[in-house]
Amino acid sequence: MASNSSGGGSDRQRIAQQRLRIIAGHLRRPVDVDSTILAAECKAQDSKTDVSSEGKTVPRRRQEIMKWNGWGYSDTKFLFNKKGQAEFTGKRYKLSGMIMPALKDWLEDTFGTNLQHKSPATPILTSSAVQPPTLNEAFVEELKSTGIPFSHDAEDRVFRAHGHCLHEIFALREGKVGRVPDLVVWPNCHNDVVRIVELACKHNVCLIPYGGGTSVSSGLECPPEETRSIVSLDTSQMSRILWIDEKNLTAHMEAGIVGQDLERLLNESGYCTGHEPDSMEFSSLGGWVATRASGMKKNIYGNIEDLVIRVKMVTPQGVIEKSCLGPRMSTGPDIHHFIMGSEGTLGVVTEVTMKIRPMPEYQKYGSVVFPNFEQGVACLREVAKQRCAPASIRLMDNEQFKFGHALKPQVSSMFTSFLDGLKTFYITKFKGFDPNCLCVATLLFEGHREKVLQHEKQVYDIAAQFGGLAAGEDNGQRGYMLTFVIAYLRDLGMDYYVIGESFETSVPWDRVLDICRNVKLRIIQECKDKGVQFQPLASCRATQTYDSGACVYFYFAFNYRGLSDPVHVFEEVEHAAREEILANGGSLSHHHGVGKLRKEWMREAVSNVGMGMLKSVKDYVDPNNIFGNRNLL
Amino acid sequence: MASNSSGGGSDRQRIAQQRLRIIAGHLRRPVDVDSTILAAECKAQDSKTDVSSEGKTVPRRRQEIMKWNGWGYSDTKFLFNKKGQAEFTGKRYKLSGMIMPALKDWLEDTFGTNLQHKSPATPILTSSAVQPPTLNEAFVEELKSTGIPFSHDAEDRVFRAHGHCLHEIFALREGKVGRVPDLVVWPNCHNDVVRIVELACKHNVCLIPYGGGTSVSSGLECPPEETRSIVSLDTSQMSRILWIDEKNLTAHMEAGIVGQDLERLLNESGYCTGHEPDSMEFSSLGGWVATRASGMKKNIYGNIEDLVIRVKMVTPQGVIEKSCLGPRMSTGPDIHHFIMGSEGTLGVVTEVTMKIRPMPEYQKYGSVVFPNFEQGVACLREVAKQRCAPASIRLMDNEQFKFGHALKPQVSSMFTSFLDGLKTFYITKFKGFDPNCLCVATLLFEGHREKVLQHEKQVYDIAAQFGGLAAGEDNGQRGYMLTFVIAYLRDLGMDYYVIGESFETSVPWDRVLDICRNVKLRIIQECKDKGVQFQPLASCRATQTYDSGACVYFYFAFNYRGLSDPVHVFEEVEHAAREEILANGGSLSHHHGVGKLRKEWMREAVSNVGMGMLKSVKDYVDPNNIFGNRNLL
Repeated sequence: MASNSSGGGSDRQRIAQQRLRIIAGHLRRPVDVDSTILAAECKAQDSKTDVSSEGKTVPRRRQEIMKWNGWGYSDTKFLFNKKGQAEFTGKRYKLSGMIMPALKDWLEDTFGTNLQHKSPATPILTSSAVQPPTLNEAFVEELKSTGIPFSHDAEDRVFRAHGHCLHEIFALREGKVGRVPDLVVWPNCHNDVVRIVELACKHNVCLIPYGGGTSVSSGLECPPEETRSIVSLDTSQMSRILWIDEKNLTAHMEAGIVGQDLERLLNESGYCTGHEPDSMEFSSLGGWVATRASGMKKNIYGNIEDLVIRVKMVTPQGVIEKSCLGPRMSTGPDIHHFIMGSEGTLGVVTEVTMKIRPMPEYQKYGSVVFPNFEQGVACLREVAKQRCAPASIRLMDNEQFKFGHALKPQVSSMFTSFLDGLKTFYITKFKGFDPNCLCVATLLFEGHREKVLQHEKQVYDIAAQFGGLAAGEDNGQRGYMLTFVIAYLRDLGMDYYVIGESFETSVPWDRVLDICRNVKLRIIQECKDKGVQFQPLASCRATQTYDSGACVYFYFAFNYRGLSDPVHVFEEVEHAAREEILANGGSLSHHHGVGKLRKEWMREAVSNVGMGMLKSVKDYVDPNNIFGNRNLL
Repeated sequence: MASNSSGGGSDRQRIAQQRLRIIAGHLRRPVDVDSTILAAECKAQDSKTDVSSEGKTVPRRRQEIMKWNGWGYSDTKFLFNKKGQAEFTGKRYKLSGMIMPALKDWLEDTFGTNLQHKSPATPILTSSAVQPPTLNEAFVEELKSTGIPFSHDAEDRVFRAHGHCLHEIFALREGKVGRVPDLVVWPNCHNDVVRIVELACKHNVCLIPYGGGTSVSSGLECPPEETRSIVSLDTSQMSRILWIDEKNLTAHMEAGIVGQDLERLLNESGYCTGHEPDSMEFSSLGGWVATRASGMKKNIYGNIEDLVIRVKMVTPQGVIEKSCLGPRMSTGPDIHHFIMGSEGTLGVVTEVTMKIRPMPEYQKYGSVVFPNFEQGVACLREVAKQRCAPASIRLMDNEQFKFGHALKPQVSSMFTSFLDGLKTFYITKFKGFDPNCLCVATLLFEGHREKVLQHEKQVYDIAAQFGGLAAGEDNGQRGYMLTFVIAYLRDLGMDYYVIGESFETSVPWDRVLDICRNVKLRIIQECKDKGVQFQPLASCRATQTYDSGACVYFYFAFNYRGLSDPVHVFEEVEHAAREEILANGGSLSHHHGVGKLRKEWMREAVSNVGMGMLKSVKDYVDPNNIFGNRNLL
């Protein structure tokens, strides 16, 4: 590519050598002397590596540390202790080991639960509940010769047969197991994945990529009609940071790395991606790319489409990857956007170059109490308009405010609870806030201390214009801390006849209030019509702000005692809620994705021509539907 | 979609009516009482509407106000007056009517030009140079019955047969005309476009959408091998703002609106998009979407992909449009990104909903002189790292600094030029800056006055860390003002045997210096090897900053006297420059796009699978290649 320099001259030679060095440097993997992390060679025969030696959260046999029929770690759950108090077991979380004195009453008041009426889960998976695997012998034979670890153990297969939709967990708790993968395979690196995909194409085996397993769109469900052997391609062992580029503030990772490991490892070098989805303990980089994930602090760090510099994906047609690491390009339609959102239907994302940032110098939480939800939304809208949103700003409705109170741990100090009471008195009696209307926004600021304090002032000043009252850092911090334990609460509910789900949307600003009110009303009405005996919980929060709208997150839960087919009732209400969202101008999803759960609305969302485009890409990339999770289309 | 509410009750009726009103409101076009602009009905038989009555810049017969063989307005050009001084004619620009005393010498020193040696353009297009149109009679007959205005006038056809690549303008100046459209059609609205596309599909006519005509990627060139009738679909008369939504800060426009009209019309309501590509006087919204345009102030307003809320495009398969106006979604791969960058190969963009912002309260220009380019780049990199870039920050190299001086208008005041001289003395003699090394960054800040001043201080403080010296607002302002007149300069050059082009790339931070140095060296070497008799101008500037890299813009020009085939030499050097860019880690394009000029590198840019995806979409959307400009693939 360099031109032939005619003539001699030491000057020209020097320049030519310099340029050759530069070009060669460009072709080399940019391992810098300052890079602290160097990847070990990928060994296909890698024996069982344990968590500590690799700094990895997720072992191959996930069921060793995670629940097979519920959320999260096995050692962590909500339960009622011998005294009848709600307790959060384990040692992993700030809340672990604490009592929540108000939770029992809240459950009883909100759902009409009765601790005497239990609906416990099937504790152990019985192997007989699992169909024997349908193995494609030719595929397995060739797989053996690659040395890539695999299993057709019932427990391994069941673990990867589902995400965390209500109906999936409900079924598992009943010990019911539907179509599951026939085989689980654990590639260690990109080349392993290439080999697996080649074999799958050769032997017509259905591949379902499995990252964190946190899908709430039925994305991981095995299509019951699938007659071919289904192989779950588990990316968790393919999780190294391959390089960190401090000059360009980028890092290159294998796509199986999960959020908590990625941040922890980058933090060791003083960096972060800042991508913190609520699922980050378990969800993977590849999964974020495949589902267009959004993180709590997107106001600073961006959503996944803002973070990604380059993606590598293995498809039946070969590997897709741009040639350039440039920050922004005009080279036809952006193929990254053919990959992002493909939800496992086109291939396996194996490696990603992402932006990184220096860790923030300073973090400060905050909270604001508003007299009502309308004022809170108006405040969020103004904050968005002035483009001064903190790293995170979330506005919960009154129901969630009360729910948050129910999760307050028992405090050791009489003084602290006295202060709490004082605060409540101040807000309700002194300032005249109605405890049945008020709502709370939680805030997180990050950055240089001076700028944070300035920023904080600006936001609180705006809040005051909308009747907002600063309510302290600890309320804010607790709000965010609860983020990671909320998911465990559903399992507690399900022990007492309460089922529920979260769902989300994005919507223009002028529709936010309508959507919040109308969807909640719709849920309540639908439950009533379908014979749900106790009023459901229907709650929402505005969880992200944008220039032209917001992300709204709903919780929906009800006591199903007396219903013969509670999951069916749940599904109908959930369906009606989504119809209501769409009718009110909300999107099909802000970040959870479509999966199989929301396929029926895809055509309406993207138009016939859009569907045709997506299908044309699928038909080209994967004509035999090797990546047969049947999401999206 | 709303559930059947069983039972009566005035409360329920009231709620139901409320919800119905809301849903109906969602379906209505959101014309608010506060919206100041309401679109008139689209009349297919609309007679010639002139510029002033519609607020439109671009008349149907563009040649009435624009050059047929050069850049921009007919009444504006650089020339040498009777005194041999360079003058900028007309009244449209700040620089209009001014003398540039230093320009003549700069041209002579830089290119070895001689005002005695002229290479003037062919002043008038001779109709005989234009082949008679190949009309598809059946198509024309049906077109007539639609009432949509059209022409097969030679001047109209030639005008739309090209963009502004050097080889295109050079040929026109020689009076040479290649393949041109056979017909020009001017739809007035989306429905007109639907009709035209239907007819084109029915009669197998090639459609080439034509927006601003400012393509520099050979995107508008008619493929010479095209045997079907070529119809240029000129969007300029389809240019209304249909509504402004002040609640959501969005606006909905017809895609033929050009940048200067869009901003001017929005300004009347106190808003702006803030999208200001250098071509904004003439380039259109539809063109920006089709080519993934970038604007000068993207640091505040974003690039086109950040600005677009919803796009509507007419394709042979039908109309593609999302159903929702939500700010950010996860509904599979983002179909907007199948449209953006499609460069006229899939359909015609007819309407776009974009974000708008309140006009900034305050604007302040600035400039910084650096001792050398390396320090300047390091400063830009630090500004990007601290995420405190102004609305615009551009760093030009020493060659462009000198070029900028050559364009200084004669000042009326002795005092002002004395001040200038004083400034030069201070910078060079007092501070020790070498006038052959120093370079200048121009800055633009926008926003609340207080914030701007704070921001400004932060940036100048960083600049000082890299040896940068504040050099005043007027130098900054002049730098930006020159943006719109630079394009006229090429025509002057071409009057004196100088041909040239700009080209651009995006590149990671650690490659910026290498790419700047290597590409300039390569250009100089290639010119020498190919017998160019005078050293070429090879100059660059870093024109946008991002987290992980920058946009670099090159100027390349040379005196071609003595060359028998100057355009061929030019093309070879341009090609080599792009090879050098790619070898040094730069992208194929940051914002100019691919067109036909850079097709050969597409496969390398997006990989085989990426090409396959793009082709599969093309084959589905446009199986008969109705949109046959043959860009990209």
